[in-house]
Amino acid sequence: MATPIAASGDQDRDRAQAASAPYRETPHRSETLNPSSLSVVFPPDAPLELESGQHLAPLAIAYETYGTLNARKSNAILVCHALTGDQYAASRHPVTGKPGWWETMIGPGKPIDTDRFFVVCPNILGGCMGSTGPASLNPKTGKPYGLDFPVITIGDMVDAQVRLIDHLGIDELFSVIGGSMGGMQVLEWAARQKKRVATAVPIAAAPWHSAQNIAFHEVGRQAVMADPDWRGGNYYDAGVVPKNGLSVARMAAHITYLSEKALQGKFGRNLQDRAARSFSFDADFKIESYLRHQGSTFVDRFDANSYLYITRAMDYFDLETAHGGKLANAFVGTTTQFCVVSFTSDWLYPTRDSKVIVNALNAVAANVSFVEIESDKGHDAFLLEEPEFHATVRGFLGAAAAKRGLA
Amino acid sequence: MATPIAASGDQDRDRAQAASAPYRETPHRSETLNPSSLSVVFPPDAPLELESGQHLAPLAIAYETYGTLNARKSNAILVCHALTGDQYAASRHPVTGKPGWWETMIGPGKPIDTDRFFVVCPNILGGCMGSTGPASLNPKTGKPYGLDFPVITIGDMVDAQVRLIDHLGIDELFSVIGGSMGGMQVLEWAARQKKRVATAVPIAAAPWHSAQNIAFHEVGRQAVMADPDWRGGNYYDAGVVPKNGLSVARMAAHITYLSEKALQGKFGRNLQDRAARSFSFDADFKIESYLRHQGSTFVDRFDANSYLYITRAMDYFDLETAHGGKLANAFVGTTTQFCVVSFTSDWLYPTRDSKVIVNALNAVAANVSFVEIESDKGHDAFLLEEPEFHATVRGFLGAAAAKRGLA
Repeated sequence: MATPIAASGDQDRDRAQAASAPYRETPHRSETLNPSSLSVVFPPDAPLELESGQHLAPLAIAYETYGTLNARKSNAILVCHALTGDQYAASRHPVTGKPGWWETMIGPGKPIDTDRFFVVCPNILGGCMGSTGPASLNPKTGKPYGLDFPVITIGDMVDAQVRLIDHLGIDELFSVIGGSMGGMQVLEWAARQKKRVATAVPIAAAPWHSAQNIAFHEVGRQAVMADPDWRGGNYYDAGVVPKNGLSVARMAAHITYLSEKALQGKFGRNLQDRAARSFSFDADFKIESYLRHQGSTFVDRFDANSYLYITRAMDYFDLETAHGGKLANAFVGTTTQFCVVSFTSDWLYPTRDSKVIVNALNAVAANVSFVEIESDKGHDAFLLEEPEFHATVRGFLGAAAAKRGLA
Repeated sequence: MATPIAASGDQDRDRAQAASAPYRETPHRSETLNPSSLSVVFPPDAPLELESGQHLAPLAIAYETYGTLNARKSNAILVCHALTGDQYAASRHPVTGKPGWWETMIGPGKPIDTDRFFVVCPNILGGCMGSTGPASLNPKTGKPYGLDFPVITIGDMVDAQVRLIDHLGIDELFSVIGGSMGGMQVLEWAARQKKRVATAVPIAAAPWHSAQNIAFHEVGRQAVMADPDWRGGNYYDAGVVPKNGLSVARMAAHITYLSEKALQGKFGRNLQDRAARSFSFDADFKIESYLRHQGSTFVDRFDANSYLYITRAMDYFDLETAHGGKLANAFVGTTTQFCVVSFTSDWLYPTRDSKVIVNALNAVAANVSFVEIESDKGHDAFLLEEPEFHATVRGFLGAAAAKRGLA
């Protein structure tokens, strides 16, 4: 276990103060360098070896925790966030001031019950909310990495999380749980740390990134890189951010998070604040206005280079190829209990991808349950009020906890 | 009938000459002002009244023809092109040098048989290959319109085509046929010109543009407008074009033209010209390389402002709202014989949209047949080799021609 050189943060600190700070050009920037959350920094002499062969040090992991770790340290749940998520799963976001992205799931009496479980949610490697990423300072230059940051993988993210879990003195996680890219991390945890994962809940995930998903990511990256304010990745000290490009990337991605039916139901062809078409390029339609808002608010809380690196890590994810072309090989010898969840209207990570995971687990006689949730909400269903989904997670965790004698 | 002030073009002209012209920054630009195809210009004293209430003059319509108009002028088929199409349906493209976009469908002995039929394919109003559009000269300023060009609709495109058909002395079209946005024009023709359309073949179309489709278009427009070289639409005389923005727009749109299965089958996660991941932002994957190519070649043949105006026209398309909220009203009293075609894997204009059209036609007891073609090729199937589709069109046109006593 590497000894951290610094561990900071006060769980009782006043997050409202950070949330009400005056607007800055890059509000996420100070969070990158000085997160409002807990944070641990691993020293330069214990670099993280990446899949690319490069070494990364120092390594900072910013994280939030909810609930209390029991004496046996047997009630810890690692929550893995998705592409644009962060450690603020169930606490107010220091930049946006908004509630956590999984407040519906995590809390006292909620499906991930913090009266029973100790929840750890780290910002991923490559992120921009305090964990080491392209906006962090490169020790060689004292300036932000930019494109000198090494290309990382989902496996690298997991290896960084292992450092954190070691640091917290937790031998075995009661559960690793996450949706979308979070689900990819869950699968990597199950494959890489077979003895340390009691239960695993990959939600709306896939064992590899499909051609269509790579394509959407490539569009987003090209949009960012086409923005002159991107400056080859060196925009940090220029007082600019590639707002327009990142906004377009977010807009395109956002369409894929919703189902066609949800878009039609929520927006349809309804006009925004007008009685008739304007015969202009204004945002006549509600859907246009909504997307523009999604794009413009995203750039205030997210680093454009992080977006490039994280999408790349997702594109590179292919658990089958990484295990000799046979997905089941990833899970040979597993003792983890799995609950695989998909949503009927998710076209980004459709049910058939979850079934591939289930089939691979069955091929090694793993303990796996699979639930396809009927939902109109598309991929984002895992972030939304979806009672059947919540009941599924609650039931699975509750039964597994009882089986293991957790209070 | 408005008398044209000019009609130019030589069907035997050497198109190869234009195709081999040296590369220019905006190769489509000279085609806008001086098309290689036939062209007719309607005079300033006969402006086209647009749905917006604005008037447009002069009005140029560039077009190609294939086959021979019979003495009774009863064998004419109007082919309506899609968003990024043009009049070069079955002839070599003067900018790209590539074969026509519907060579598989149009020609001697082909489904649209030029031994029997006289095919007219105009460049749409708002286009950039010779018909009046935002790159055309604004008579008030002598400079390109840019964003001073009025926002147009699918109905306006059809009204402009009516001028051309008048000019050609054709009272009734034997058929109006087109896919995607071409299918929208077909529906508008059937609704606006009930006595002049004997048969109509809307392919892979919809009676309105959905929220998801508006969303994808808005992403594309924002990508174009985010490019500093767009210059508020006034890039023509600056020697630049918003290449990067238009390229991103094309990439995003292109994903929607293919099915997920087609992308997975054609590209999968295959790498491009390399044995392993590069751990960089190079185009590692074939799908990335393919998309980048689609984007970069598009900007050489298409005007960015045309892309804005045409996508806007599609977004505005809603035949139901335009007819008092009841789609069937659009077709009351029709004597047109319809053949509605959809493709199983088309998620941009799915079969359910075609069924809405069919139901509306049935509600007014129209003569309609409906064929859903089993295909993995997605929306673009209408442009590709798809034998069942070709047999459908051949059979429908042949039977209708026989019924009408056409040779």
